Amino acid sequence: MDTDYVHGYSAEEQQRLLDQAGALVDLLHVDTAYPAGALVLEAGCGVGAQTVTLARRSPEATIVSIDVSAESLAAARARARDAALPNVTFARTDLYAPPFAPRTFDHVFVCFVLEHLRDPAAALGVLRRLLRPGGTITVFEGDHGPTVFHPESEAARRAIACQVELQRRAGGDAMIGRRLYPLLAGAGFADVRVSPRMVYVDASRPALVDAFTRRTFTAMIEGVRAPAIAAGLIDADAFDEGVRALRRTAEDDGVFCYTFFKGVATG
Amino acid sequence: MDTDYVHGYSAEEQQRLLDQAGALVDLLHVDTAYPAGALVLEAGCGVGAQTVTLARRSPEATIVSIDVSAESLAAARARARDAALPNVTFARTDLYAPPFAPRTFDHVFVCFVLEHLRDPAAALGVLRRLLRPGGTITVFEGDHGPTVFHPESEAARRAIACQVELQRRAGGDAMIGRRLYPLLAGAGFADVRVSPRMVYVDASRPALVDAFTRRTFTAMIEGVRAPAIAAGLIDADAFDEGVRALRRTAEDDGVFCYTFFKGVATG
Repeated sequence: MDTDYVHGYSAEEQQRLLDQAGALVDLLHVDTAYPAGALVLEAGCGVGAQTVTLARRSPEATIVSIDVSAESLAAARARARDAALPNVTFARTDLYAPPFAPRTFDHVFVCFVLEHLRDPAAALGVLRRLLRPGGTITVFEGDHGPTVFHPESEAARRAIACQVELQRRAGGDAMIGRRLYPLLAGAGFADVRVSPRMVYVDASRPALVDAFTRRTFTAMIEGVRAPAIAAGLIDADAFDEGVRALRRTAEDDGVFCYTFFKGVATG
Repeated sequence: MDTDYVHGYSAEEQQRLLDQAGALVDLLHVDTAYPAGALVLEAGCGVGAQTVTLARRSPEATIVSIDVSAESLAAARARARDAALPNVTFARTDLYAPPFAPRTFDHVFVCFVLEHLRDPAAALGVLRRLLRPGGTITVFEGDHGPTVFHPESEAARRAIACQVELQRRAGGDAMIGRRLYPLLAGAGFADVRVSPRMVYVDASRPALVDAFTRRTFTAMIEGVRAPAIAAGLIDADAFDEGVRALRRTAEDDGVFCYTFFKGVATG
């Protein structure tokens, strides 16, 4: 169980996760839908940022969404209630020891979760045992490594490195996206197929400039300002310079790119 | 005119460019085709690695392919002859001062050229003036920045950095991909649309492991071994360690990702 969730549990962070989910719906969910009657485990649903989309896109599937945080689950439940989703149920449980019998689920969905785990390989092993024969797992994870922007900025890179380091100290890996293939194959999954999903943002896509560059990525980095300074990773001026440089990439001649990876495999 | 072409003009390098073109045809050309009767300028055709695909995909367009290197043009002409392409003609000319009247071409195609130019903005200005009203420009460029791989390796990053630095010293920019939007918009083009094309390679795609990870990217880095050592950027052992680390990413649990950017705009 990881309690040092790097992004924190603040209201601002919850809004950021929801903004992110909105901006990324097409990119991440466009080819994710489950058939009528399918029983789907959403492992690590957090505040439900993906749950609503998942449930809406598969209205005749049944979604069981689990998370270790009671506070996050409460937020997820409220969102599901507001969205009047009839096909989602929630349960508080540790991802490493879920209270379900082997071969319970037709499919497993995992989004932005492995990056926070101390032992993602073990978690995938647990999830694989929950799958019925022929069932699939779908995993989305980001990777800070391919992040590029214009204008280039060492200050921005230093601020981003603080988030990477804090996540590492909490047992996670902000560069896990590139590892989906070896992680899934190593956990015994078959037919592993991974595809990258780069979010490319320039001024020709103003909604994405706002929703992704500003309110998703830059906001995520801003969110580690206090812990990064407290941990002695950076001083306030240097951090703020980095955030300004990230904001600069949202101007009219700026460009920002971030990459997610989607992995699909059978159990 | 840039004579310090970072990749060199060797036979091995010509083969690498052709391997690369083969591996990337789908990724780069899938949405590039010109209608019957169109007059298309391929600016900087080099050894013709893209020319054959370009001409075959637009069999009723007329392609005029130019390059500054007589040696490259000879290779390109031989390839076009071998491929029995009836719709391509070649001309040796400087990209900055082509001998064509303004508004001569319906479309311009530029692939892996701007990265080698000292003044890509000026080159785009020249090309824009060659376009008829409403004509389009299509530009492909790579960017080493988003390159990630597994296993991660500092040695590999140092070897890659040699290629970036040599290209910079030759007046080029191995990170130009991310700048296509500001470059095209700044040169006066309208309706600029840029999309990233990430080449993602793992063991589930063995042909791409060979064609891209080994024979395109790793071979490109290996190609700067002698000049990198001669320039004092790295010693032989460190360089070779980096190349071994890149080759390691082509093994069964390895992953390699490289990103190209495609820009399309109207003149």
